[in-house]
Amino acid sequence: MTKNIAILPGDGIGREVTAEAVKLVQIVAASRGETWNLEEGLIGGAALDQTGSPLPDETLRLCQAADAVLLGAVGGPKWDHLPGDKRPEAGLLGIRKALEVYANLRPIQTWPGLLLASPLKPELVEGVDFIIVRELTGGLYFGQPKARLDGGEAVVDTLHYTRAEIRRVVKMAFELAKGRRGRLTSVDKANVLESSRVWREVVEEVAASYPGVSVEHLLVDNAAMQIITRPKTFDVIVTENMFGDILSDEAAVITGSIGMLPSASLGEAGPGLYEPVHGSAPDIAGQGLANPLATFLSVALMMRHSLHFPEAADAIEQAVHGVIEQGIRTRDLARSGEAFVRTAEVSAMVCEDV
Amino acid sequence: MTKNIAILPGDGIGREVTAEAVKLVQIVAASRGETWNLEEGLIGGAALDQTGSPLPDETLRLCQAADAVLLGAVGGPKWDHLPGDKRPEAGLLGIRKALEVYANLRPIQTWPGLLLASPLKPELVEGVDFIIVRELTGGLYFGQPKARLDGGEAVVDTLHYTRAEIRRVVKMAFELAKGRRGRLTSVDKANVLESSRVWREVVEEVAASYPGVSVEHLLVDNAAMQIITRPKTFDVIVTENMFGDILSDEAAVITGSIGMLPSASLGEAGPGLYEPVHGSAPDIAGQGLANPLATFLSVALMMRHSLHFPEAADAIEQAVHGVIEQGIRTRDLARSGEAFVRTAEVSAMVCEDV
Ligand SMILES: CC(C)[C@H](C(=O)O)[C@@H](O)C(=O)O
Ligand SMILES: CC(C)[C@H](C(=O)O)[C@@H](O)C(=O)O
Repeated sequence: MTKNIAILPGDGIGREVTAEAVKLVQIVAASRGETWNLEEGLIGGAALDQTGSPLPDETLRLCQAADAVLLGAVGGPKWDHLPGDKRPEAGLLGIRKALEVYANLRPIQTWPGLLLASPLKPELVEGVDFIIVRELTGGLYFGQPKARLDGGEAVVDTLHYTRAEIRRVVKMAFELAKGRRGRLTSVDKANVLESSRVWREVVEEVAASYPGVSVEHLLVDNAAMQIITRPKTFDVIVTENMFGDILSDEAAVITGSIGMLPSASLGEAGPGLYEPVHGSAPDIAGQGLANPLATFLSVALMMRHSLHFPEAADAIEQAVHGVIEQGIRTRDLARSGEAFVRTAEVSAMVCEDV
Repeated sequence: MTKNIAILPGDGIGREVTAEAVKLVQIVAASRGETWNLEEGLIGGAALDQTGSPLPDETLRLCQAADAVLLGAVGGPKWDHLPGDKRPEAGLLGIRKALEVYANLRPIQTWPGLLLASPLKPELVEGVDFIIVRELTGGLYFGQPKARLDGGEAVVDTLHYTRAEIRRVVKMAFELAKGRRGRLTSVDKANVLESSRVWREVVEEVAASYPGVSVEHLLVDNAAMQIITRPKTFDVIVTENMFGDILSDEAAVITGSIGMLPSASLGEAGPGLYEPVHGSAPDIAGQGLANPLATFLSVALMMRHSLHFPEAADAIEQAVHGVIEQGIRTRDLARSGEAFVRTAEVSAMVCEDV
């Protein structure tokens, strides 16, 4: 059966890593004797430059009609001076909202071969394996009003949630925990924010349906500490949009290999959105130095969650693991002085093994 | 000249550490041939239990009439089920707001003798020395509305700032940077929040008056990573209330010695508010196991910033350093199996050396 996959390269190294991912996806399709329909769309700075909008209607239609969307990265200094709604990031927020992918899943894992790259002591991070579920389409990012007041002398952003918005993402987190080690950590700031108190209530409500999952509540400031001091103890962490933005990047960096981390953004129905955790890295863009493996692992998540090919997901993950265990290093993973391979080289190695 | 110092022990180990700090302050006063007026006030859970309010009027008046306020810690599981305005934390937020201490200063330093306690590799944290300036009386903590809507089906918190609120804390951060290594890092989320865009504008405006200070802007998610990967490179970090809450706790934990970290909250005029960074630690409260040194270092900051006795500040800091360098360890600092001293013991050692 043919599949429709929208490819949104975006900016900077987003273009390079998605180009390699396209090859990988085509290999998977060919191995099943199928030809899939991969179509590129503009987003972010590239879209701004060509159409004046960070998320052109055409891209939106392309994504809405797809089975899954693969995104590279958006943004760069070139567009930093533009007003809020004309920035590359507005394209990213727009596509998340339009597809209603309310749950951003970020698996945080350390790799045996890459432990020494972690800023943390190896004994703290060895065997870390948790997943952060970040609410992605509500909260401070989208609440209204978001505006200047009093002739520009004051400004407001709004943290707004409905119980339904909280419930659906919390449920997804419980489902994940149930299929894993059965431990859920919910992060909020219930001692200060009303929205966090509602968040905590909803978590307790949903918990009643998951007697096999143990629940711990952490305040966000405490969570920022615990992620560093006891990362191995987490299984699934669920939190609201802004807290999730901060904590998932913090969690990513403790692995020492942010160039290896994928993400999946899922909704109730419709296409999932898959992106590497790293950004557009304008400083190394266009030089063949990018690490495509986070994007490859995002493709694996896409195979598993949107395209229902768990075997393809396993094959990709195994091939990536194999390359790392062989000692192959991209520039971001190489220690100073160590030899490294270029984007196309490591991509070819993985593609050969899939 | 006599000084009026309000002592607010609060809850849990807050009581134990302030009791030791009172002795220290009296020693300093005596060494100057003076008797200072130290008066205790109720705050937090202790105040709730005795008066029904987490911040009784009497405490407020006591603090407003003081030259400085020393606070232990507030909160504990006993009061966690209470509604927002009846929680111990409401007392803390209330006193900050009433005293208008808009700038929370948190020095983040590693101690040569305690490097191994850090979760980070020692080479990353050796010599870390920066200060976080957190806006403390605005933003999501205080903005209105903060309420349930639609019969409880929705909820809102409000991130509100005026340019004047931003300007005063940013100025204080520039002043600090000017007196240190001349590097300011401003943290915001300008690619998403309107309030962050105003924040960044104000930083740029104020920067014009500080040509000797270099300014870097970091997005909060990126800052959460950089604090871990390159902590030595920071000098002064300034950010809004909620980001500061999260990042300052994250920064605290990388030192490996959160029991050693003081804070000062300052306003334009009026008394400063001094507190250790650690919380009320209900699990060890009342057992003589608390580490009073963060509170002692907070007393040092009080001597420097509110009481204008820089020599006393230096003396306290030196005495604390001396005790640590001698290898004395409180329970939180001792490695497993290592001997440790109790609250009163370490307090006596420092007091003797001051
Ligand atoms: C680019 C930015 C708008 C985005 C976010 O904050 O969500 C990014 O940081 C992320 O985490 O995907
Ligand atoms: C207790 C709580 C309200 C407080 C805060 O969030 O400001 C604490 O975490 C702190 O950082 O002083």
